[in-house]
Amino acid sequence: MTDTSNIKPVADIALIGLAVMGQNLILNMADHGYEVVAYNRTTSKVDHFLENEAKGKSIIGAHSIKELCALLKRPRRIILLVKAGAAVDSFIEQLLPYLDKGDIIIDGGNSHFPDSNRRYEELNEKGILFVGSGVSGGEEGARYGPSIMPGGNKEAWPHIKKIFQDISAKADGEPCCDWVGDAGAGHFVKMVHNGIEYGDMQLICEAYDLMKRGAGFTNEEIGDVFAKWNNGILDSFLIEITRDIFKYDDGSGTPLVEKISDTAGQKGTGKWTAINALDLGMPVTLIGEAVFARCLSALKQERVRASKVLDGPEPVKFTGDKKEFVDQLEQALYASKIISYAQGFMLIREAAKTYGWELNNAGIALMWRGGCIIRSVFLADITKAYRQDPNLENLLFNDFFKNAISKANPSWRATVAKAVTWGVPTPAFASALAFYDGYRSAKLPANLLQAQRDYFGAHTYQLLDGDGKWIHTNWTGRGGEVSSSTYDA
Amino acid sequence: MTDTSNIKPVADIALIGLAVMGQNLILNMADHGYEVVAYNRTTSKVDHFLENEAKGKSIIGAHSIKELCALLKRPRRIILLVKAGAAVDSFIEQLLPYLDKGDIIIDGGNSHFPDSNRRYEELNEKGILFVGSGVSGGEEGARYGPSIMPGGNKEAWPHIKKIFQDISAKADGEPCCDWVGDAGAGHFVKMVHNGIEYGDMQLICEAYDLMKRGAGFTNEEIGDVFAKWNNGILDSFLIEITRDIFKYDDGSGTPLVEKISDTAGQKGTGKWTAINALDLGMPVTLIGEAVFARCLSALKQERVRASKVLDGPEPVKFTGDKKEFVDQLEQALYASKIISYAQGFMLIREAAKTYGWELNNAGIALMWRGGCIIRSVFLADITKAYRQDPNLENLLFNDFFKNAISKANPSWRATVAKAVTWGVPTPAFASALAFYDGYRSAKLPANLLQAQRDYFGAHTYQLLDGDGKWIHTNWTGRGGEVSSSTYDA
Repeated sequence: MTDTSNIKPVADIALIGLAVMGQNLILNMADHGYEVVAYNRTTSKVDHFLENEAKGKSIIGAHSIKELCALLKRPRRIILLVKAGAAVDSFIEQLLPYLDKGDIIIDGGNSHFPDSNRRYEELNEKGILFVGSGVSGGEEGARYGPSIMPGGNKEAWPHIKKIFQDISAKADGEPCCDWVGDAGAGHFVKMVHNGIEYGDMQLICEAYDLMKRGAGFTNEEIGDVFAKWNNGILDSFLIEITRDIFKYDDGSGTPLVEKISDTAGQKGTGKWTAINALDLGMPVTLIGEAVFARCLSALKQERVRASKVLDGPEPVKFTGDKKEFVDQLEQALYASKIISYAQGFMLIREAAKTYGWELNNAGIALMWRGGCIIRSVFLADITKAYRQDPNLENLLFNDFFKNAISKANPSWRATVAKAVTWGVPTPAFASALAFYDGYRSAKLPANLLQAQRDYFGAHTYQLLDGDGKWIHTNWTGRGGEVSSSTYDA
Repeated sequence: MTDTSNIKPVADIALIGLAVMGQNLILNMADHGYEVVAYNRTTSKVDHFLENEAKGKSIIGAHSIKELCALLKRPRRIILLVKAGAAVDSFIEQLLPYLDKGDIIIDGGNSHFPDSNRRYEELNEKGILFVGSGVSGGEEGARYGPSIMPGGNKEAWPHIKKIFQDISAKADGEPCCDWVGDAGAGHFVKMVHNGIEYGDMQLICEAYDLMKRGAGFTNEEIGDVFAKWNNGILDSFLIEITRDIFKYDDGSGTPLVEKISDTAGQKGTGKWTAINALDLGMPVTLIGEAVFARCLSALKQERVRASKVLDGPEPVKFTGDKKEFVDQLEQALYASKIISYAQGFMLIREAAKTYGWELNNAGIALMWRGGCIIRSVFLADITKAYRQDPNLENLLFNDFFKNAISKANPSWRATVAKAVTWGVPTPAFASALAFYDGYRSAKLPANLLQAQRDYFGAHTYQLLDGDGKWIHTNWTGRGGEVSSSTYDA
């Protein structure tokens, strides 16, 4: 084992994991004048990185964990950017022998927040400060300014705040990085960010499908629409890259996007969001539909077989006004997006309650404003809404969004009705509208559902203007009077 | 402790847990000539049961687990009908000291199937045969013939088959009870049953809401519609009890159902189904929306506040043909129901693959035909479809269902379009239709989604007519050529 006794602790921070995100984060930190230690399990990657991208920058390579730790000033600051799961625990294990109390381990990967809760507790007992930090922005963001969502042991924050806010994206001069909350709160908020990202992407895909299979637009026309939208209320990173994607020509004549397989992958964070919503009992329907839409896309061969036997409406011969259609579509996408974010913040609200976190919604919206995949003008309005009223019960109660969705209503309904009639699937648009109509219903038909459950399962029900007492009715006159206590039929 | 040395093992089977389901199952077994031991933790319940419902029947009360075990013939057959979770493990612990190898513990509660997988393994090591059995039918079903879905240790089946098939419901003379599969397969199938039950109930609620808030039907008219539907393609237990519920008069003049609070409870099995669908990557969208609809109904006070600020279309003044509207609604409900069951069997198919179970779809449909909450004429057609072709890839590929959904198409679309225009929420109808249109799409817009993921995260994509190779494009000309290996932005 290398003797490290002569190594001077000169470096400000270390990063483990030299995949694209890791390399770019290191270069970003170096650009801001930090001395960064780079390490990777396959150390040949370290050498390759130093000889190429990192050449001439304030970046030191380490070839062992021991060397990495010896190179760091105290308290040591170490970022893990490795595959979520066992790899994170394994590197923490490898680091511990070389760390002192007060040193800081930052997991910048996409860890599931319950794992971060656990690691926070385990390392807290050892006197090591754990930070679970969401980092979003893809390779571009990591390189030039990502959105960073750190949570965990708050004692670590003063030691990492400057570095993190220096390298993070800025929105109107404000860093898109602030302390989120205790334990796994940082990774929780990143999880919801990714869920919302799933929703945004699905909404854009449905708009594309309506233009293509519905109104018969060419890719050129579709690209122009996204270019136009990017100068309006939908101005956002995802709309911008969609414009670029439709403009991207690989020289073959056919736009590259049309040659790409329509089978979406998903690495789990969107799924986690939907599962968490089910666990906390929050109706985050749009993200749910977005995740399921990816699952359905993955059943490519089955869909191809189904397309040959299952019929629907005749192919659309669009004869309407294209401009009007596009403007309605823009309003529909915008309204659906408002619903998706409203649902996301409903989940965050419930999580704060359930997990005992103090979460600052305005701060979260600000962190998402720049650097990350869902960055948009839209998030500035959300930040404003929560700054106006930090206790805002629901985004939809804010005047700006209330009026926006009111204005969008006719176009939104017309668009979903068109999709339904044309036979073009818009699960996210339709689910958002159904949620809106359910949310604004003082009375839903669930009274019948409660009657049914009491009828067949003696589950009992409450009266609308009762004292909250649970009542069982012997609907048939046959069944017993015993009400169900332990059993769910 | 009572001396049990003189107790003769005269009883055929024992049941622990005297809530309504337990009591009724015992009475059902006694009616079929079985000598049944009844036990409950609170033994006063045992005495009360013996002095009342059980009086004069072949039912013996036990006042201790030891006494219960002494009363049973070998191999001992013991049914647990207690609250899912810790109570089941606790009773298993209490039973073990008094059991011999080959004795059978049957968990008839609503246990989560992973728990049944675990208990099957644990008891297998001890030589005890564990059966996790779904039981559905509510109090009526338990009393006069439930649907029973047993799985676990197959060695137990010959010893319980006769009792279970004697007391189970019958459909065209066939018992609605058969061996499902290994380990937790019985509880898994019961879980899916409950998920489908959530979906069916939600669909009925949406039809009710469309008739009430949409077309302005009176409760009398609504009751008549369900009565009519119960003689047609929707003939089922849930439609039948819905008819009864609308006809139920508590003498106050207002139908009781209208006085019941519209806040639905959910005990978790529907949620488990949706989570399992997300875990297995199967697009079971209708059950997902049904669970979320219950979550939304629970936010009653928030909805009431929202109803005062969020606007939508003017209240409907229905002037159309009521009969035509009702007939279209019937077709819409029927088509949505077909989708829900198709999705449910997609989940079962994937679970069999993932968990290594041999599941017989025709048998499962048959078990659901009678006794249980979702029993219907419809399930006879599903049984037939899977008997015609046990390897049927999807219900929608069966001619009967393919033609049924083809016939329903125009009415289905018209109904969802109406709901969208009227502002009446139909999340399940709309989600089912979106799934159908997605499922029959050889090409979905997910190609754009894959391009986006490669653009911002270097996630790579495959070409439609490529060799399956994963490709990364440098869309911007700026980002590196390094493709993402460990990181999900």
